[in-house]
Amino acid sequence: MADPATISPAPLLKDELDIVIPTIRNLDFLEMWRPFFQPYHLIIVQDGDPSKIIKVPQGFDYELYNRNDINRILGPKASCISFKDSACRCFGYMVSKKKYIYTIDDDCFVAKDPSGNDINALEQHIKNLLCPSTPFFFNTLYDPYRAGADFVRGYPFSLREGVPTAVSHGLWLNIPDYDAPTQLVKPLERNTRYVDAVMSIPKGTLFPMCGMNLAFNRELIGPAMYFGLMGDGQPIGRYDDMWAGWCTKVICDHLGWGVKTGLPYIWHSKASNPFVNLKKEYKGIYWQEELIPFFQSVTLPKDCTSVQKCYIELAKQVKEKLGKVDDYFLKLADAMVTWIEAWDELNPSGASKSAALPNGASK
Amino acid sequence: MADPATISPAPLLKDELDIVIPTIRNLDFLEMWRPFFQPYHLIIVQDGDPSKIIKVPQGFDYELYNRNDINRILGPKASCISFKDSACRCFGYMVSKKKYIYTIDDDCFVAKDPSGNDINALEQHIKNLLCPSTPFFFNTLYDPYRAGADFVRGYPFSLREGVPTAVSHGLWLNIPDYDAPTQLVKPLERNTRYVDAVMSIPKGTLFPMCGMNLAFNRELIGPAMYFGLMGDGQPIGRYDDMWAGWCTKVICDHLGWGVKTGLPYIWHSKASNPFVNLKKEYKGIYWQEELIPFFQSVTLPKDCTSVQKCYIELAKQVKEKLGKVDDYFLKLADAMVTWIEAWDELNPSGASKSAALPNGASK
Repeated sequence: MADPATISPAPLLKDELDIVIPTIRNLDFLEMWRPFFQPYHLIIVQDGDPSKIIKVPQGFDYELYNRNDINRILGPKASCISFKDSACRCFGYMVSKKKYIYTIDDDCFVAKDPSGNDINALEQHIKNLLCPSTPFFFNTLYDPYRAGADFVRGYPFSLREGVPTAVSHGLWLNIPDYDAPTQLVKPLERNTRYVDAVMSIPKGTLFPMCGMNLAFNRELIGPAMYFGLMGDGQPIGRYDDMWAGWCTKVICDHLGWGVKTGLPYIWHSKASNPFVNLKKEYKGIYWQEELIPFFQSVTLPKDCTSVQKCYIELAKQVKEKLGKVDDYFLKLADAMVTWIEAWDELNPSGASKSAALPNGASK
Repeated sequence: MADPATISPAPLLKDELDIVIPTIRNLDFLEMWRPFFQPYHLIIVQDGDPSKIIKVPQGFDYELYNRNDINRILGPKASCISFKDSACRCFGYMVSKKKYIYTIDDDCFVAKDPSGNDINALEQHIKNLLCPSTPFFFNTLYDPYRAGADFVRGYPFSLREGVPTAVSHGLWLNIPDYDAPTQLVKPLERNTRYVDAVMSIPKGTLFPMCGMNLAFNRELIGPAMYFGLMGDGQPIGRYDDMWAGWCTKVICDHLGWGVKTGLPYIWHSKASNPFVNLKKEYKGIYWQEELIPFFQSVTLPKDCTSVQKCYIELAKQVKEKLGKVDDYFLKLADAMVTWIEAWDELNPSGASKSAALPNGASK
């Protein structure tokens, strides 16, 4: 196989990628990322008090939206965008006009690889997104398109072209992304293991998608990257990225696109307060026992040929099947529809974009 | 979660594990493995000319079977054991009386980890087999039971106990396990990437199982570890381990057991001849395009509650559905039945061993 990783230097996608950052504080963390992020455009979504001034280090090209901006731009549809929760970041996905998005939390710093070199997380995400995925069969040497690797004996040749990659999920050194109970039980655990791998998450398999260090092809999967209703006025928090991940994976599986996880790592500097997290999470912890079987068994009809159609259908099924779990899901299902309406309003040309279902891609 | 890896030193399972080695030559390679293998019992399956004397380095405890022994022990049922192909190794699984099997090729040597330490492959396999698997949901930090790792946020708590691990599939540094076409195209490619991870292969996902460096719980999955009809008198070779892997994975998925892949690495010293391999593989290369859809869609009925019942059912479906692809699969289906008869004859106590189907384990 030709190895796209060796066709480097990897295209920077300078004019095709926005970096979305949700924040409530000054963005000093960008200083460390300057060598890697400065060429790109930033979309900063300011959470909390809109009168607060967020300082952005000089030299970065950015646009910033606070709650007043969101309300002004979306009008009544602003109700679908969470407040006082990093879920608000998905507003940035909606207003972007670029093909790719990278989103990162403001407590994430540049990690080092085992040789001590700074990891250019964005470059690795771009590589991941530009290389195909292989969700239909597991390759034991991980990403077959990486330099020095390939498909192993027994891998069907008909599957070696792979499928487009919609999502690249990166990991975290230092503070792992644990839930509150695990944080409480293991307050001192740090992730020190650098696993030098990228892999496709197989079709039909769900995963916990963390929004801390995440890239995706907005043109392909953007409308499914809704981070739900969390935070202020909602009974739940810290499930925004999980919700997006489950919806996204189900839709990628249906449309025949790939989701990758593994490299790149960022350095996650600070564990959030486990007691606060427990309060935000506790409903999610028991709801998720019903959400996972729902997402594991959900099927989308063949005529769902665009992400929007898939997402509206999913909202319908959420209302029907999860509405029984809690009224919250009725509200969430409505917000999912509002999100798509708002997306299509801001992205009129992409509204009817549809995917050709490849052979065997539909469930 | 309690971390079984920290309850070390890992139980050696000295009296519960046999090492199975198929060979046609003197076993000098064992010298390098002496510190790790010497406490264990070896089962050597001598392939090819039975009059040839295979030299085993002094100090190893072993039993050796050549073709005459296989014919004597199995009588007419010996027809299910391949000749002049490493598929003959599965005879060793059948005559073992131990709970666990580790099998390794005689061109595999001790690899070094990135710190330069010798890797005790067997110890890592034992850890893998004694830790549960998590096939129902993907954990982005890989094996959650390893020291320093756990289940990440969003992983359902009801799935954190995991399920028994039936198979541990280890990898190879230096010569990767490529098919003949890839060998021909990339004769100089070497695997130098040490990926420090063990992971469960998700339920419903097939993988290419290589027999070079493989361990399994014989008591759980032994009867499915049939390496098929390969080599002398057969139209195909080098698909023995693949066949076993596909059958095994489908049965593990049905019975709710796990399959792990990743660590440990061995050092694979020498690439086999790609021209010879091409001759052995070429039918497999196109047959596999029909085999994979077959194994991806096969379902086993609920009353298949033991590996034997599953395997007999699988043989029936192979005959029905793959018999159309080539007459070879009619012969293979019969050999699968013969294999189970021979297994039960040599392992009378385990003949009716059955698995309690856990919730949600059946398809």
